Amino acid sequence: MIYLDNAATTLHKPKEVTAAVVKAMTQMGNSARGAHKGTLTAGRIIYDTREKLCRLFHGPGPENIVFTLNSTEALNMAINGLIHPKDHVISTDLEHNSVLRPLYRLNKEQEVELSFVAADKTGCMDYNDFEKLIRPETTAIVCTHGSNLTGNLVDIKKVGRIAKEHNLLFIVDASQTAGVFPIDMESMNIDVLCFTGHKSLYGPQGTGGMCISKDVIIRPMKVGGSGIKTYEKEHPADLPVRLEAGTLNGHGIAGLGAGVDFILRTSMDQIREKEQALSKRFYEGIYPLSNVTIYGDYSTNNRAPIVAFNIGDYDSAQVSDELAEVYDIASRPGGHCAPRMHEALGTKEQGAVRFSFSWFNTEEEVDQAMKAVSSIALEG
Amino acid sequence: MIYLDNAATTLHKPKEVTAAVVKAMTQMGNSARGAHKGTLTAGRIIYDTREKLCRLFHGPGPENIVFTLNSTEALNMAINGLIHPKDHVISTDLEHNSVLRPLYRLNKEQEVELSFVAADKTGCMDYNDFEKLIRPETTAIVCTHGSNLTGNLVDIKKVGRIAKEHNLLFIVDASQTAGVFPIDMESMNIDVLCFTGHKSLYGPQGTGGMCISKDVIIRPMKVGGSGIKTYEKEHPADLPVRLEAGTLNGHGIAGLGAGVDFILRTSMDQIREKEQALSKRFYEGIYPLSNVTIYGDYSTNNRAPIVAFNIGDYDSAQVSDELAEVYDIASRPGGHCAPRMHEALGTKEQGAVRFSFSWFNTEEEVDQAMKAVSSIALEG
Repeated sequence: MIYLDNAATTLHKPKEVTAAVVKAMTQMGNSARGAHKGTLTAGRIIYDTREKLCRLFHGPGPENIVFTLNSTEALNMAINGLIHPKDHVISTDLEHNSVLRPLYRLNKEQEVELSFVAADKTGCMDYNDFEKLIRPETTAIVCTHGSNLTGNLVDIKKVGRIAKEHNLLFIVDASQTAGVFPIDMESMNIDVLCFTGHKSLYGPQGTGGMCISKDVIIRPMKVGGSGIKTYEKEHPADLPVRLEAGTLNGHGIAGLGAGVDFILRTSMDQIREKEQALSKRFYEGIYPLSNVTIYGDYSTNNRAPIVAFNIGDYDSAQVSDELAEVYDIASRPGGHCAPRMHEALGTKEQGAVRFSFSWFNTEEEVDQAMKAVSSIALEG
Repeated sequence: MIYLDNAATTLHKPKEVTAAVVKAMTQMGNSARGAHKGTLTAGRIIYDTREKLCRLFHGPGPENIVFTLNSTEALNMAINGLIHPKDHVISTDLEHNSVLRPLYRLNKEQEVELSFVAADKTGCMDYNDFEKLIRPETTAIVCTHGSNLTGNLVDIKKVGRIAKEHNLLFIVDASQTAGVFPIDMESMNIDVLCFTGHKSLYGPQGTGGMCISKDVIIRPMKVGGSGIKTYEKEHPADLPVRLEAGTLNGHGIAGLGAGVDFILRTSMDQIREKEQALSKRFYEGIYPLSNVTIYGDYSTNNRAPIVAFNIGDYDSAQVSDELAEVYDIASRPGGHCAPRMHEALGTKEQGAVRFSFSWFNTEEEVDQAMKAVSSIALEG
């Protein structure tokens, strides 16, 4: 199988990631529960991974890295734990349902007012709109760093500056960008950065989390066992345990640490350049096809390694199915949990076929994918 | 290291569990996202694990198995998602903080009234107390299947009958018992069974979940990406996706499935008998020591494979440290996130040293542990 669905999950991981998981599964006790070799090993591996992620995101400290099941959980925790009834929140048309649905729920149940910065037909926003939408009761901007559908990036430094000027909380969804694009919590004025482990950080599934700025206090979604302060009725207030009730996915976090090591060792720049080159190669290969429509802003090369397109008026699921069945190529069709983005692109009915590239793809795979898309396009 | 901290996490897993995780990490895409080989493989493995767990717990169907990060998350979801402001809830002194702290929070913030069935100095309850505590506004009983500190079991069939007679929701914490003791959702009248994957189900960390009875509708704690119904503002209402926003820990769930296979193949009865025999052997070995105090009800052999004790007035952490450092034996000291249990036992200050056994322990290990405890006791 030629795997080009890396924006959903990276199937091919560095071999060190699997090795780290296997090692953890034979050595790790339950972190922060007692003080024998197994629990100390678990504690050290988990702390090391916090430290590496903190370095990657220029966070305030390892204890400000909180682990969750996935990015969706981190976003729910940040959104529900920071936004109050009747607040006004600004978000964008580029968001994934992991941002939209928590916001819609707050709108329905807690009278939270929502405004969305509109995207045009290429999936681009006018950054002036963020300021135009600010009201006296605005408290937060929740914004993706890159669209999971078009691959368009958001200039989160610019948005962060606006948030800071107006004293708004800035929550960023880095699900598609962490590990590939530089993120600096401090200079970008990010209050909460939510990330997933199993995509471009090359960790196992079941990992993700957030990096939380100093002085940002999130109401916990879950409380319970903490391994410390057993006799207090309230869950401990300090990070990271504040937001990490129960046993962590230690085995997965060991793998995530190895994934981050791989990125730091290979260099994020080199990874990004390769992925962008593969993505561009694919784009340039299918762009000339007369009945192929490609979505997104290609006036810049600084894009997430994603190419979304349709062939004529073919249903995107049919195209993906043919790619899978006839050519053994994994792509992703449909809505991609990005309803507002599809509405902006005018692709709500058809969906779109998405190809997404990783460090572990090759030019040969891209060329085969191009040929397969060409063949399907020429049939049409 | 002789690992006798299996009630915290089973460090030694069946080799098939690690193999399943490794295989999943090379084959699994993101379940329910698209229809290529990778995503179909993921979907199949996850469904198979639901099916096995449903069989293990006699649940209503595979779709009633919901996966979470851990048992704590499952308990938070069940408790917060089913109990309403001003409800009255009955729980017990045997509970872990993963039950207590969510309840205490509801008490503080939502005027939920709480009553606890008291435990005596052997950690036993009078089952008549459940009925005595019922009030007109009582809506639920939340109860562990076995104390994580003493190893005492709770007759959940008896409690379930009381819950049913009084039309109360019955939420069970099976963190210490799933995979070792028979659980039958239907005949025990359990509405929500919460379990963890990484203890006696022999799965990886980062796995757990709940089995939900028919007609029990839990308000979701998290909403977001679901891979289906992209254009609906609300998260899909059907189980399991209702309570599973975002990408699941597919790799971990693959391992959990292999853990359940191991249990079904080896037979739960055989596993339980071996673990109980090891536990009894250890108990009988240290019981005669004059300055050793053992906690729990040993009038029955039907106990979780846990022995908790203290040596004289030694701090439990000091004893566990000596066991780890001098004898390379992993035990767990302190409060064990069971504050009410320690209060009932009168061990709040001292904590207790807990030994907990698994299928992968041997009689030789137990004998070495007994000798180590004897040596420390004789020093005292």
